[in-house]
Amino acid sequence: MRLSKLGEFGLIKKLQKKIPAISPDVITGIGDDAAAIKVPKSRILVTSDMLIEGVHFDLSFTTFYQLGHKFLAVNISDILAMGGEPKYFLVSIGIPEKCDSENINELYSGISAIARKFGISIIGGDTCASKNGLILNGTLIGNVKHRTINRSGAKAGDGIFITDTAGDSAMGLFLLLNLKQKIKRCESEKAGIKFQGISLECRNVLSLVKKHLMPQPVHLKNTHRVTSMIDISDGLLADLGHICDESRTGAVIYKEKIPLSGELLSVAKKLGRDPLDFALKGGEDYILLFTAPVSYRTNAYRIGEIIKKGRYIIDSNGRKSRFKAEGYEHFKNSE
Amino acid sequence: MRLSKLGEFGLIKKLQKKIPAISPDVITGIGDDAAAIKVPKSRILVTSDMLIEGVHFDLSFTTFYQLGHKFLAVNISDILAMGGEPKYFLVSIGIPEKCDSENINELYSGISAIARKFGISIIGGDTCASKNGLILNGTLIGNVKHRTINRSGAKAGDGIFITDTAGDSAMGLFLLLNLKQKIKRCESEKAGIKFQGISLECRNVLSLVKKHLMPQPVHLKNTHRVTSMIDISDGLLADLGHICDESRTGAVIYKEKIPLSGELLSVAKKLGRDPLDFALKGGEDYILLFTAPVSYRTNAYRIGEIIKKGRYIIDSNGRKSRFKAEGYEHFKNSE
Repeated sequence: MRLSKLGEFGLIKKLQKKIPAISPDVITGIGDDAAAIKVPKSRILVTSDMLIEGVHFDLSFTTFYQLGHKFLAVNISDILAMGGEPKYFLVSIGIPEKCDSENINELYSGISAIARKFGISIIGGDTCASKNGLILNGTLIGNVKHRTINRSGAKAGDGIFITDTAGDSAMGLFLLLNLKQKIKRCESEKAGIKFQGISLECRNVLSLVKKHLMPQPVHLKNTHRVTSMIDISDGLLADLGHICDESRTGAVIYKEKIPLSGELLSVAKKLGRDPLDFALKGGEDYILLFTAPVSYRTNAYRIGEIIKKGRYIIDSNGRKSRFKAEGYEHFKNSE
Repeated sequence: MRLSKLGEFGLIKKLQKKIPAISPDVITGIGDDAAAIKVPKSRILVTSDMLIEGVHFDLSFTTFYQLGHKFLAVNISDILAMGGEPKYFLVSIGIPEKCDSENINELYSGISAIARKFGISIIGGDTCASKNGLILNGTLIGNVKHRTINRSGAKAGDGIFITDTAGDSAMGLFLLLNLKQKIKRCESEKAGIKFQGISLECRNVLSLVKKHLMPQPVHLKNTHRVTSMIDISDGLLADLGHICDESRTGAVIYKEKIPLSGELLSVAKKLGRDPLDFALKGGEDYILLFTAPVSYRTNAYRIGEIIKKGRYIIDSNGRKSRFKAEGYEHFKNSE
C-alpha cells in the first residue's frame, strides 16, 4: 500500500500492532508524546545510531528485513560492549516516496525478530517523510548488569581478547561491492560464482555476505574481571586504538593469533588477498574486543597484551612493526 | 574548517569540549559505546524526534543556531507534555558536505544554550556523513516528576486548556514561505515590509517568525489535577483529536476563547486571513494542551470542555459545527 494512502498515523497504528511491548516495565509505549518505562536498577545505558541510505547501506544489496535486523543489531552491540543488557528500543524513520508500506513492514519484521531474541521492547520513536533516501535512527536503552565497562580501564599487562573471528563482514562487503547483482545467482548455495575469472564457492560467499548484512551480536557471559571493552565497528586496529587512547596505554598484538574463519581464509586465498587486511582494518564485525588479566578464563581468543606505550603488531616471524589506528572514519574517508 | 580535515573523531572531540555534561548523574558521557546515567527515580520518560532538511527545516530560513535550539525544544516539549523533567539528550547528526565545522559548532551552540536553560546534559549520540542534506535525530530522557500524564485520561466534564496563544508559529511559517529572503530586510525592526502590496510591521513579522524558528517550551507548574496532556505540534484540532481518540471522548471548543496574539491578529487582519485558521490547524506551537476538572486553578486559557461524544466547534454567534482533526500528517500531506 502506498504510504500516502495510509498516512503517518495509519502507519504508526499498523506498526504499533506489529510490535507489542514485551516487557511489563513499559508503562506507556508507542503513541503518546514520550514513552514511560520502569527502570529496575538505578543506572541505565543509552546508545543512539544513525543509518543513512547511500552512506551506511545500499538497498540493492540488503533486503528490508536484513536492514531491520542490522539496524537493531548495531545498537545491541553497543550496549553489550558496556556490559549491559539491552531492553528498550526507539525507532526514528525517515521514509522516502519509493518505499511502500510492505517495505516498512518487512523492515519492522527484521527489527522485531532480533528484538524478541534479546527480549527488547520497542517503545517509541518518530515516523516522517524523507525527500532523499531512507533514514534510520535507533536509540537503545539497557540495564547495567553488574557494572559498566568502559574503554578506559585497560592496564599494562592485561591480555587483549576478541570474542569471534574478525574480517568476515569486511570481506562480505567487498564481495557485495564487486559482485553486486551477480550474487543473487548464488542462492542455491551449491553452485560456484565467478569473480574476475576466479571461481568462488557460493557457500563461502553467502556466509561472508550474511556476516556483513546480518551481524549477530553475542554478549560476554562473565565480565567480572574485564577491565575495558568495545565492539569492533570501526575496525580491530581502530577500535583497539580507541581503548589505548582512553586507557592511556599501548598494545601489542600477534598476527597469527587473530582468529580467521575458514570462509575468509578460502576466499582471500583464491583472490590473492591477505585475509588479515580484512580482519585488522575492515570493521563492522560487531564482535567484542576486551581486556582482562591474562589469567582470565574465557572462550574468547587472546590476540595480544596491553603494554605501557606504543602500538605494535608482530608477525609470524617475530618481526615487530608499529600500527596506526586504521579503520573507517566519517568525513575523512569520503575524500 | 572543512570536516574532511577534522574527521569524525576530531569533530566529536571538539563537540565534547563544547558541551560538558552538567549533571553529576552522568557516569559515562560522550565518547564510549553507550552513555551511562544514574536515574534517581524508578521511572523514566524517553522521546525521539527526527528533523530532515527539506522536510522539517530549510537552511535558507533558519540559522544553525536557531535550528539547534528548535531541535532540542521540540523534544523538551514532548517530555513536558508527559509531566516530566527533561534531563539527558542524545544527538545523532548526518552532516552533508556543504556544512563545515563552523556550521556544526553554531548548531551545537543553539542546542547548548537551551540545554543549559533546562539543566539538560548532552550525553551521546552519533555523528556521520550524509549524502543528501542535514539530518538530525534527538533522543531526550526525562524524569517523571510526580506521575506520567498521558493522552488517555480526559473525562467528560473536564475543561480543555492551552498554555499560550496558538497559531503564531504557523503564521510565522506562512510569512517565511512567502517573504523568503525579503524577510532579512526586516532586521532593523523599525521599518515595514511589503507583502503582496500590503505593508506589514517588521516588529510583528519578526515576532511571529521567531515563534516558528525558536519555540520556547514552558512547563505546567501544577499538574496535580491534570487528566490528560499533549503538546501542540500537529495543530490544535489534530492534537485535541489525539486526546479524544485515546480518551474515547468528544470535545467542544469555543472559537472566541482561543487566545490569539496581538501580532497574529494584526498581520492576519492586514492580509485578510482568518487568524483562527492558523490557530486551529497550524501546528508547531509547542505549547501544552491539557484537560482538567473545570474547577482547576491555572493561568492557562480554558477553551472548551470534554464531552462524551462528537467533536464540535462553536463560533461567537453560538453556531455549532463539527470539526475534523485537521493538521499536518506526514506522507498524506505530501500528495
